[in-house]
Amino acid sequence: MKRRLGPTERLYPMPTPLIVAGIGDRLGIMAVAWIAIAGSTPSSIVMAMRSTRHTLSLIRETGEFTVNVPSVSLAEAVDYCGIVSGRNTDKFADTGLTPVPSAVVATPIVEQCPLNFECRVMSEVPNGEYVLVIGEIVETHVDEELVDEAGRIDIDALDPLVYIPASREYRGLGPKVADAFKIGRAVAPKE
Amino acid sequence: MKRRLGPTERLYPMPTPLIVAGIGDRLGIMAVAWIAIAGSTPSSIVMAMRSTRHTLSLIRETGEFTVNVPSVSLAEAVDYCGIVSGRNTDKFADTGLTPVPSAVVATPIVEQCPLNFECRVMSEVPNGEYVLVIGEIVETHVDEELVDEAGRIDIDALDPLVYIPASREYRGLGPKVADAFKIGRAVAPKE
Repeated sequence: MKRRLGPTERLYPMPTPLIVAGIGDRLGIMAVAWIAIAGSTPSSIVMAMRSTRHTLSLIRETGEFTVNVPSVSLAEAVDYCGIVSGRNTDKFADTGLTPVPSAVVATPIVEQCPLNFECRVMSEVPNGEYVLVIGEIVETHVDEELVDEAGRIDIDALDPLVYIPASREYRGLGPKVADAFKIGRAVAPKE
Repeated sequence: MKRRLGPTERLYPMPTPLIVAGIGDRLGIMAVAWIAIAGSTPSSIVMAMRSTRHTLSLIRETGEFTVNVPSVSLAEAVDYCGIVSGRNTDKFADTGLTPVPSAVVATPIVEQCPLNFECRVMSEVPNGEYVLVIGEIVETHVDEELVDEAGRIDIDALDPLVYIPASREYRGLGPKVADAFKIGRAVAPKE
């Protein structure tokens, strides 16, 4: 039996990257869980932000932002960046997170996050009290020690933080269940 | 040190729900990992689909779709729905997944998935070879035995399947790391 809960926003699991916007010493950083890849032609990303967000106003000034994927070890700093507004405090100073130069855009990436995307805004879509920001991914960075010669990322070493809405908890990844684009081949089409 | 990988689509982690479209015996079902909540006013969802997808053409016919979150135990069926096109085979019959009536929309949900969203298309945004479909979430269903009186979902019992791009593997969730909107309070703002 199913129980009806009405409209909710309980998609599981969610990522919880840190979004950085701004340049120089005028930077915003916030955690966003409503974010996904938007396509591969070009590589792009879409995220929902409340339209009143300080970080969104900074994105609009420069047309750029970075997406910084945290490890489980950064849960405290990520949570702080999700709770507190940067209008009144310097969240980089408060958390010890370090903005370091990007390669393509002027907005910095976060040194402590092992995976980073540099993005340029392509468009915005208003959605009630939220705005969908769609950005082209123009560069990806990964910590050198997490990647092999072929560019394969050691996902267990990267240890990405996972967000679970409604119960409001952070998780890590569990062990591997199966290979994608492979295990499904065991299903035989019915004639 | 960071290594530059160029533009990629390696956001971690990703959900991997099954999208159902169509009505009656003309149904499409596919797995989508590029999907996120799009806002809460109204509750809404955004997903990227390749514009040639059979399921997308069915969504356009009815203006509806459902999002069905699978447990780890459904990895094989999910993977099959991600590999194979429904133009030439009945993926419900092939996998044993069962379409059951929704409450609000005419498109069915998947019985075996413990969490389901009924959605109505609000808009589309073209994005290269992809289309962003933005839908209002008009109803949520959860398996009765996974939810308590207060509507709290037992996330370990639900056991959502996680997708890891690039290394192309499925994962489960790891143990709880911390409470969100709580652990961050330990960070003290610098004066």
